[in-house]
Amino acid sequence: MTELTVLDRAACQRRDADDPLRGFRDDFIIPTDTIYLDGNSLGARPKGAAERAAAVIEDEWGEGLIRSWNTAGWFELPAALGEKVSGLVGGGDGSTVVTDTTSINLFKAASAALRIQAEDRPERRVILTQRENFPSDIYMLQGLAEQLDDGYEVRLVDDAEVTAGFPTTMTDEVALVVLTHVNYRTGRLFDMRSTTEAIHAGGALAIWDLCHSAGALPIDLAGGGADMAVGCTYKFLNGGPGSPAFIWVAEEHRNRFAQPLSGWWSHAKPFEMSPGYAPAEGIRRFLTGTQGIVSMSVAEVGLDVAARADMGAVRAKSLELSDLFIELVETRLSHHPVEIVTPREHEHRGSQVSIAHEEGFAIMSALIARGIIGDYREPSILRFGLTPLYLGFADVWDTVEALRDILDNRLWDTPEFKVRGAVT
Amino acid sequence: MTELTVLDRAACQRRDADDPLRGFRDDFIIPTDTIYLDGNSLGARPKGAAERAAAVIEDEWGEGLIRSWNTAGWFELPAALGEKVSGLVGGGDGSTVVTDTTSINLFKAASAALRIQAEDRPERRVILTQRENFPSDIYMLQGLAEQLDDGYEVRLVDDAEVTAGFPTTMTDEVALVVLTHVNYRTGRLFDMRSTTEAIHAGGALAIWDLCHSAGALPIDLAGGGADMAVGCTYKFLNGGPGSPAFIWVAEEHRNRFAQPLSGWWSHAKPFEMSPGYAPAEGIRRFLTGTQGIVSMSVAEVGLDVAARADMGAVRAKSLELSDLFIELVETRLSHHPVEIVTPREHEHRGSQVSIAHEEGFAIMSALIARGIIGDYREPSILRFGLTPLYLGFADVWDTVEALRDILDNRLWDTPEFKVRGAVT
Repeated sequence: MTELTVLDRAACQRRDADDPLRGFRDDFIIPTDTIYLDGNSLGARPKGAAERAAAVIEDEWGEGLIRSWNTAGWFELPAALGEKVSGLVGGGDGSTVVTDTTSINLFKAASAALRIQAEDRPERRVILTQRENFPSDIYMLQGLAEQLDDGYEVRLVDDAEVTAGFPTTMTDEVALVVLTHVNYRTGRLFDMRSTTEAIHAGGALAIWDLCHSAGALPIDLAGGGADMAVGCTYKFLNGGPGSPAFIWVAEEHRNRFAQPLSGWWSHAKPFEMSPGYAPAEGIRRFLTGTQGIVSMSVAEVGLDVAARADMGAVRAKSLELSDLFIELVETRLSHHPVEIVTPREHEHRGSQVSIAHEEGFAIMSALIARGIIGDYREPSILRFGLTPLYLGFADVWDTVEALRDILDNRLWDTPEFKVRGAVT
Repeated sequence: MTELTVLDRAACQRRDADDPLRGFRDDFIIPTDTIYLDGNSLGARPKGAAERAAAVIEDEWGEGLIRSWNTAGWFELPAALGEKVSGLVGGGDGSTVVTDTTSINLFKAASAALRIQAEDRPERRVILTQRENFPSDIYMLQGLAEQLDDGYEVRLVDDAEVTAGFPTTMTDEVALVVLTHVNYRTGRLFDMRSTTEAIHAGGALAIWDLCHSAGALPIDLAGGGADMAVGCTYKFLNGGPGSPAFIWVAEEHRNRFAQPLSGWWSHAKPFEMSPGYAPAEGIRRFLTGTQGIVSMSVAEVGLDVAARADMGAVRAKSLELSDLFIELVETRLSHHPVEIVTPREHEHRGSQVSIAHEEGFAIMSALIARGIIGDYREPSILRFGLTPLYLGFADVWDTVEALRDILDNRLWDTPEFKVRGAVT
């Protein structure tokens, strides 16, 4: 960050020209005059998504009708898409399904993990999770603990406690630790392998939420020792608004995985329609009920784009983009009270840059008004998601320059930009 | 059924010409040379579904990107579609959301109902449900009972026990009764009002599954005294494959409704992202996580068609169609060993005709091969769903004539039609 290279827009454009991932930009349709930095909330639209939806609706549904459950492979979509996700997160064969929502999959995984612990370490009743995990994850765990009653309890821990390996919170009461791989506000990335080792050393199981990392960086679920994982497909995997989530379970737990949302899609013989539940062997037991086939089919388009990308190259570019972003903020906005919240160390950084400014909300509104779309999180945080497949270095330059213009000229300081509606 | 009218194809065509619902046929696109009698499994494709998907993907997602959560009303879709469903099932204002799957919504409803009973009648631990309820409903209840432990138990009852008002099974152990409104195999319709009265008289709560009745007949949830209800939108509501389900809760229970799948969409202030769960007032507390917006948007197209139809007229035509079907089977297939399984009494009949034949599987395969699409359920049952919005009287005539041809000439008796793959 202290290199003496000339850093200007032309230099950024040269880096774009040399970018080995540059061709992926053409796999997406981004609105004109838009720089999209919110792919960590909702990924952009891949080419082919609308055509896929049309084919599902007109041909598979319209012409195939009920037959398409078999002939168009609808029943197999959760497993088929699961294989594609698995390839991106190092899950291994037959480890992953795409189904339901992240919140619901977390409920399944946490329920199953607690049942395993109830057999293996029956006295343990505590679930640890980050205070800054996705709120929905925390709420789901609270809902599960309340339903189980029997002394189950969710305890919130600070990020520093996680990175230090749980020195004060990992007691012999802890059954389960649920962690987001990347803090959605700050962009802090947690090391899966060492953190999971600390969890296992404490006798607990580890569930990782990959919503903010799947598709953004290389992940080695099977090699990293995780017990279970969940994540969405609508952020860095560009699956479309609310596209279905995934759930992964380590091989050692797969046939001990018992979940209460035991709908017919998880039954060993769903078409016998017997009145007694019996779980399928393998990954089908992670399923529940009939899936939204249109949304799921569209999600596959995004997964197929990601599958063509080398995740190592994606990670390298992501770090180059965030390094550039940070350097530009430091050099070109240094006369403003902005604080870089995202960790500087590569090993602790996800694929976003978060900066704090007490007028963050109005500043982000002003940016969005000129087509530079990031988002805002309380308190004071401007979030900029960096999706290497469709974002370039000149985009980062233009973003920081726009920020500079807005800050230098207090363009945020109008009632229009200060009124808060629902914030996404 | 013993009228002396001449019953031939021309008479059926005259009835089609006089059908007040005839215009609705043009709201759907049915493949040529197809008679579709599986709308109780997957409804047909309404016109406009593909256009709606294209608009969501190209405009709302592609152009609006993250902003569409607000500007395109994505966050409000569960409640907006819920209002439309509510209008079709007599739910009342602010009573219904469209979200997740039927199985998951049943889990929420049953969990909430058992919590209410744990406060009001804490000794009760039994859930009754029909042995022939949808298997997935039974499995979900079994999953919930196992999760709750503490003596909770699912007991299966025969349909006759339900219609008789639970003379032998309604003990003071029963907390909850979960019933499908229509038996998916036989087509038997249960009377919601009198059955719910019997359940309430026994001190239990009633949850109804409307998957096989919503959109097929008038339903008066609020007036019928039900406590909670769930159902899908992909059968008689023509919402598309796996389109999201709905959940309705009676006003008296709405603010006591507490469910363990307490994701952020059910939070009182989802965008404060606080680490403590607090349920929203009203129907938003039935929600869990982010919904598949493409599937949900497409579902709205089917709901909008249904909203234009008078449910009384739909029911009248449905009964005329099933009367005709039964009469034709009795008169024109009388020389074959077919048994009509669906109740003859209108008040006990849903919107389907099921007939049994020991070679039912092969017969249905032969029918499907000539473009007449019903389905098969073990053991021996040929199911014919009757969707009045797109099915006519001549279609019924042609179906029974095809059956006659297949039976008379043993056209089902080939290896091709006897091999069982996955059956839908």
